[in-house]
Amino acid sequence: MSQLAFQDYYPDHMAHCYGCGRLNEYGHQIKSYWDGEESICTFQPKPHHIAIPGYVYGGLLASLIDCHGTGTAAAAGYRAENRAMDTEPPLRYLTASLHVDYLKPTPLGSVLEVRAKVKEVKGRKVIIEEWIVVNGEVTVRGEVVAVQVPEQMVKELLGMDERRKKK
Amino acid sequence: MSQLAFQDYYPDHMAHCYGCGRLNEYGHQIKSYWDGEESICTFQPKPHHIAIPGYVYGGLLASLIDCHGTGTAAAAGYRAENRAMDTEPPLRYLTASLHVDYLKPTPLGSVLEVRAKVKEVKGRKVIIEEWIVVNGEVTVRGEVVAVQVPEQMVKELLGMDERRKKK
Repeated sequence: MSQLAFQDYYPDHMAHCYGCGRLNEYGHQIKSYWDGEESICTFQPKPHHIAIPGYVYGGLLASLIDCHGTGTAAAAGYRAENRAMDTEPPLRYLTASLHVDYLKPTPLGSVLEVRAKVKEVKGRKVIIEEWIVVNGEVTVRGEVVAVQVPEQMVKELLGMDERRKKK
Repeated sequence: MSQLAFQDYYPDHMAHCYGCGRLNEYGHQIKSYWDGEESICTFQPKPHHIAIPGYVYGGLLASLIDCHGTGTAAAAGYRAENRAMDTEPPLRYLTASLHVDYLKPTPLGSVLEVRAKVKEVKGRKVIIEEWIVVNGEVTVRGEVVAVQVPEQMVKELLGMDERRKKK
């Protein structure tokens, strides 16, 4: 079994995201792995990631839910086809919507455990259910709707579309 | 008319948030103002706030929706009572839930305009409707449910509760 994280399989042009890109030196560089039918990502917030003193700010929690969710959607897509994340054809996912319920303030200082599982697959849409655990308590629940986008569309967004360039 | 932003009125113990605290030197330090019945906040993302190259990462957009939403909820609370945001008794709001729809990729480089209006007030809950405009296009829609929390509860969370300390 490989110890690479989902995000380690992203090709370079998909690896700059502030939340999950291994090539973004300023970003969170989250790492997500399978843990049975669930996926897991641990994250240590920095002291300045505060809401009110002693608690984690909501934007970081939303970002973790977002990026761990799209990572899990991608990993689930490859798993459903029983192939590794670096095999062809590529499966790329972007976030269509994000919902976060802040059940209680999330204490700052401890490692956060972000967990996810696939709730539903509807064509190219994957709904990922998530929760964040800190010191044994669930403080946040979230849901991401990720949409699989054709690699061609990703390349067009990135201006890497050779056919368009030749026009 | 005062030129102070909503966040400039937050007392020091509420001014450390990574998203909106004027005292968080690492954070976004957003500034929100009334613009008629809507509120507005402009924000220039940094080059490293990327999703895929050329586009803003979703976690930042969620954070802007979150903090501009709670700021607007607070401002609306004071406005409903026809008093300034630094008058007593204090009105403090925390985010109960956040929803973000990413309608299309948000281009990175231009200033983002985050707009909000109060959709509904249900007792201590305020629902804020928001949208983000860049280069004249709405790329994101969001909703924040903010809850007014008693100052006493804020102080307990902060360990500033004198009665508890004396026990």
